[in-house]
Amino acid sequence: MTLHDGKIRARPDDTYPTRVEDRERWLERLEPVLWSEWSSDAPISREQAGCYERDGYLVMKDIFSAAEIEALVQSSAKLRTAGSTLPVEDVVTEPGAQEVRTIFRLDEHSEAFRRLAHDRRLAGVAQFLLGDGVYVHQSRLNYKPGLTGKEFYWHSDFETWHAEDGMPRMRAVSASLLLTDNGPLNGPLMLIPGSHRTYISCRGTTPDENHKSSLKQQEVGVPSDESLARLAQTNGIDYASGKAGTLIFFDCNTIHGSNGNITPFPRSNVFFVFNAVSNALEQPFAARKPRPSFLARRGAPEPILPVPGALA
Amino acid sequence: MTLHDGKIRARPDDTYPTRVEDRERWLERLEPVLWSEWSSDAPISREQAGCYERDGYLVMKDIFSAAEIEALVQSSAKLRTAGSTLPVEDVVTEPGAQEVRTIFRLDEHSEAFRRLAHDRRLAGVAQFLLGDGVYVHQSRLNYKPGLTGKEFYWHSDFETWHAEDGMPRMRAVSASLLLTDNGPLNGPLMLIPGSHRTYISCRGTTPDENHKSSLKQQEVGVPSDESLARLAQTNGIDYASGKAGTLIFFDCNTIHGSNGNITPFPRSNVFFVFNAVSNALEQPFAARKPRPSFLARRGAPEPILPVPGALA
Repeated sequence: MTLHDGKIRARPDDTYPTRVEDRERWLERLEPVLWSEWSSDAPISREQAGCYERDGYLVMKDIFSAAEIEALVQSSAKLRTAGSTLPVEDVVTEPGAQEVRTIFRLDEHSEAFRRLAHDRRLAGVAQFLLGDGVYVHQSRLNYKPGLTGKEFYWHSDFETWHAEDGMPRMRAVSASLLLTDNGPLNGPLMLIPGSHRTYISCRGTTPDENHKSSLKQQEVGVPSDESLARLAQTNGIDYASGKAGTLIFFDCNTIHGSNGNITPFPRSNVFFVFNAVSNALEQPFAARKPRPSFLARRGAPEPILPVPGALA
Repeated sequence: MTLHDGKIRARPDDTYPTRVEDRERWLERLEPVLWSEWSSDAPISREQAGCYERDGYLVMKDIFSAAEIEALVQSSAKLRTAGSTLPVEDVVTEPGAQEVRTIFRLDEHSEAFRRLAHDRRLAGVAQFLLGDGVYVHQSRLNYKPGLTGKEFYWHSDFETWHAEDGMPRMRAVSASLLLTDNGPLNGPLMLIPGSHRTYISCRGTTPDENHKSSLKQQEVGVPSDESLARLAQTNGIDYASGKAGTLIFFDCNTIHGSNGNITPFPRSNVFFVFNAVSNALEQPFAARKPRPSFLARRGAPEPILPVPGALA
């Protein structure tokens, strides 16, 4: 919140202060990771639920048919071609080129991807993990060409969502569906297992309009070199690879990043962040103004009713 | 070679013209890859010799003892600390910092690394692969910290050595010994198997003093996007990983590169290029002046007499 002297001050009720001190701190996570008791009705196995709770992420393979994935790949190609007909703020093109790299609010621009977000294999799993009704906090289609793909540095999404969007608690999960094969060499999603148990309260202050640069390169809200080295040495680094159709769930506080990609093999995925309806956004905890709604849906969205069965 | 109009012209006797046309061309390799007939006296197995010939590289594990590698790691740490006492041109430090990143002419600055270069497991294998006496064309110690390691783009070493150093034929091999563990995520050496069979004659002209920028980022003498995509789609991409002590031999014309490294795990290796004594350097084939001798030893060096047994 902002005081009359223009400085951003921590809210006294903030359980996860960040970007307010002149030093970094490690705080303990206060919420559960898995919010439901597992039962045989659950949309994932007991073992999968255990992995997610322990590691902070879960990689699921072979849960979509080849036909379903092929149809999604075609939908994504059409959307990228139609990029210029979409609202300007929802589309990121490569500097100097017209090639579409990212389309935000994906579930509002495509019936196929809206249906995907509502699928029991996504929204149903998210609802189980979070033990609550869920809505889409952010969604996007990412396309990164080969040869020139840049890295994305380590961060916890929750740190940003808390600081800049006003998400109060750790009760959100991201689902990333690969639309291309992803191996270790073409910049896969890397994750630090167990990092979701610790909240790294970061040094620094959020600049105004931070999202305009942080979408390209995040400089505020990243853990220090020492913290990353300590986490990685203690916990190791894992990566999510698999064929197109591989689905990755990861907790909002799991530290992740990706290396650049000089291979000619592009990377594409769709990305949905599910938030618990009981965790609706408030005012930002460490920024002057909330980020725009293409990055963080505000208000009190209706919970999704997960849809069973194959995609149309 | 240079004519009176200042342009760099192809030599009429040049079997591997490059950087002279306004288009890229794929030419066939004219020399063998493996220059010796395998026999039971050879320093590598028949299978290893076959792999090297087929793929253009060979990864060898567990050929040094833990004590040998530990001693080399210690020697490298000492050398990096003593960086400021070495000739300025042989040492590359990080911009803005004094941390040593590269030490050239490694075999001239360190008795331990000179002994390593002469070891039967390096010089002896190189002599076998090239079917000739060998000498060290270039040597260096590389140290890349984690978190910020930048990528190195795809290239064939021979293309540069031919164009800028005047190496006439493909009769050289690089040996890279890992001094840190290297996995798929911390920017390992990536290679395109079979790419050594084709010479990609590159577009463009060599700028004067090209090595001053090309050591950081190579812009001339790199294959086109289309060539890289075609090679990678046909042949795939492999990478050389392993524990400290892993030794990689790769042919001078094998296309290779490495991704950046945002993991906190540093990468360090020592690198020796062995050239056949019959393949001594001439005038550059596509540059005005030869590169300095810390990058390419000139003259008629004596062939190495490979030393058997453990490192001291």
